[in-house]
Amino acid sequence: MELQKRKNQLDFSKIENEIRVFAPATVANMICGFDILGFAVDAPGDEVAMYRTTEPGVRIRSIQGDDGRLPLDPDKNTVSACVKMLLQHLGIENEFGVEIELIKHMPIGSGLGSSSASTVAGLFAINNLLGNPLSKEELLPFCVEGERLACGHGHADNVAPALFGGITLIRGYEPLDVIKLPVPNDLYAGVVFPKVDVPTRDARQLIKGKVALKDAVTQWGNIAGLIAGLYESDYDLISRSMKDVLIEPTRAILIPEFYEMKQMAMDLGALSFGISGSGPSVVAITKDESIAKQITEKISAHLTAKEIESLHYVSAVNTVGPKIIN
Amino acid sequence: MELQKRKNQLDFSKIENEIRVFAPATVANMICGFDILGFAVDAPGDEVAMYRTTEPGVRIRSIQGDDGRLPLDPDKNTVSACVKMLLQHLGIENEFGVEIELIKHMPIGSGLGSSSASTVAGLFAINNLLGNPLSKEELLPFCVEGERLACGHGHADNVAPALFGGITLIRGYEPLDVIKLPVPNDLYAGVVFPKVDVPTRDARQLIKGKVALKDAVTQWGNIAGLIAGLYESDYDLISRSMKDVLIEPTRAILIPEFYEMKQMAMDLGALSFGISGSGPSVVAITKDESIAKQITEKISAHLTAKEIESLHYVSAVNTVGPKIIN
Repeated sequence: MELQKRKNQLDFSKIENEIRVFAPATVANMICGFDILGFAVDAPGDEVAMYRTTEPGVRIRSIQGDDGRLPLDPDKNTVSACVKMLLQHLGIENEFGVEIELIKHMPIGSGLGSSSASTVAGLFAINNLLGNPLSKEELLPFCVEGERLACGHGHADNVAPALFGGITLIRGYEPLDVIKLPVPNDLYAGVVFPKVDVPTRDARQLIKGKVALKDAVTQWGNIAGLIAGLYESDYDLISRSMKDVLIEPTRAILIPEFYEMKQMAMDLGALSFGISGSGPSVVAITKDESIAKQITEKISAHLTAKEIESLHYVSAVNTVGPKIIN
Repeated sequence: MELQKRKNQLDFSKIENEIRVFAPATVANMICGFDILGFAVDAPGDEVAMYRTTEPGVRIRSIQGDDGRLPLDPDKNTVSACVKMLLQHLGIENEFGVEIELIKHMPIGSGLGSSSASTVAGLFAINNLLGNPLSKEELLPFCVEGERLACGHGHADNVAPALFGGITLIRGYEPLDVIKLPVPNDLYAGVVFPKVDVPTRDARQLIKGKVALKDAVTQWGNIAGLIAGLYESDYDLISRSMKDVLIEPTRAILIPEFYEMKQMAMDLGALSFGISGSGPSVVAITKDESIAKQITEKISAHLTAKEIESLHYVSAVNTVGPKIIN
């Protein structure tokens, strides 16, 4: 009923002909919060341009920056597939058509939520083009569905921060329960992406199905400490808490120079350092932009010396999520 | 050096001759936070009266309410042993003597932090009698040592809330890192102690050393949700988060009528219901005192019908910890 009402409220005569949206990259896990925490960064991110067409259907007009790795078939590409799902949900797939340009400003398979950024940009764009019939909360399940298409798992720890901005907690999945956490003012992230291949599926398969209860207790003490630290803007507590005793020891194996990079970051004053999502990107959390810059530059230089190409980004926590550009 | 200075500052001529202290019972784990969370309640609790003597040494004058179960030997009784440790730490064990009366107002082996309440009362009493040479933070390690003597484990999830009051998080043990969490105004606890024997050691041994990572993720999502809920005074979030998928299924086996009691509590509007510490006491968390009363009365009547004796208590979260009485 509710949906029918919203569909009836859609006024196609007032709808814009095009829109351009940026959605941010995200750092899932936030070092100690495997599968439950994540935050958005100002850079990098992905861009989606969307054009209204008179002919119904969802088409991919072009994809830039993916080195030809992403499918142009609208049923296989997660952005177009999610947009189509949303139009079907609203029951307007025969009344409305769009063409999509996807401009990837970030590497695929980097552990920075590349597919999430694209999916969120696409869904935010179509929802805006339609006059925002759905709230962000209502868009979230479509974003999660996009993750399932892209990675085989319907995780929300990238799409939630990409969509809502800031730091998000996925309390649980049944039903999906996302909590926005406070963002301390001076929190910065220095991200380095070493150009090595770590497919998300492999990174997940490495992780053991059983863990020592003792280690789990250490981990959830740290998670609880991090949440308290965010509410208190207590950077010392954040630093003491952002430690991963469970996942990092396994995943770090896949990342060249991980412990050397960690040592450099901590020596330069990082609050914490760890793996972004399933890697291979790594992240230094700092309470100062200049420290994050020093860290990423030093790590990049180190990787170059070891003949490993890399990209690096320094950014505050992005608190807005996707935004209309131009 | 610091200690010597404090010792020199002690002015024995100004010290009171006696003191009487109450310290609160505590609910460790707070349902979802095994080994890291705990809170203090206004009732029940233990009482320690302490008398200065000219003759050095620490003696137990009497113990009431323990049915003869606690040792009178000052080296074996945890209260006197901890008091002695503190006097030795200050280097004044040959200059100062005390006699202790311990009045137990709460059952031993109930899962309500009985030994913690006594130890905290004793250490708070001696520190006050001496003019407070140590801060509460400095008293904590002595309290933890008391737990080690009493239970064989140096856990802090009972002594920390008993000493500091309120809701405490033990972020980690190396070093001991205790965080005081906010206490929402309307949070009440209805505690029922079914008089059955569940020794802490047995309750711990039942728990498996390894847990499924999937369950650990569920648990730490809930723990993170609870911390956020406490900061936000969001009772719905607190309720959704206070679930224990890891420990309760095992420990509940030892508690008669556990699931029947849980059903009654949830039917009457509890935010959550679970085991207090290692049990057999159970606790209903409510946002209203009258709901907590209804729950404890209904559960007690049910246990009586099943020929199980019980005690019950309703209380707000105690936010002060130990206090001087009379």
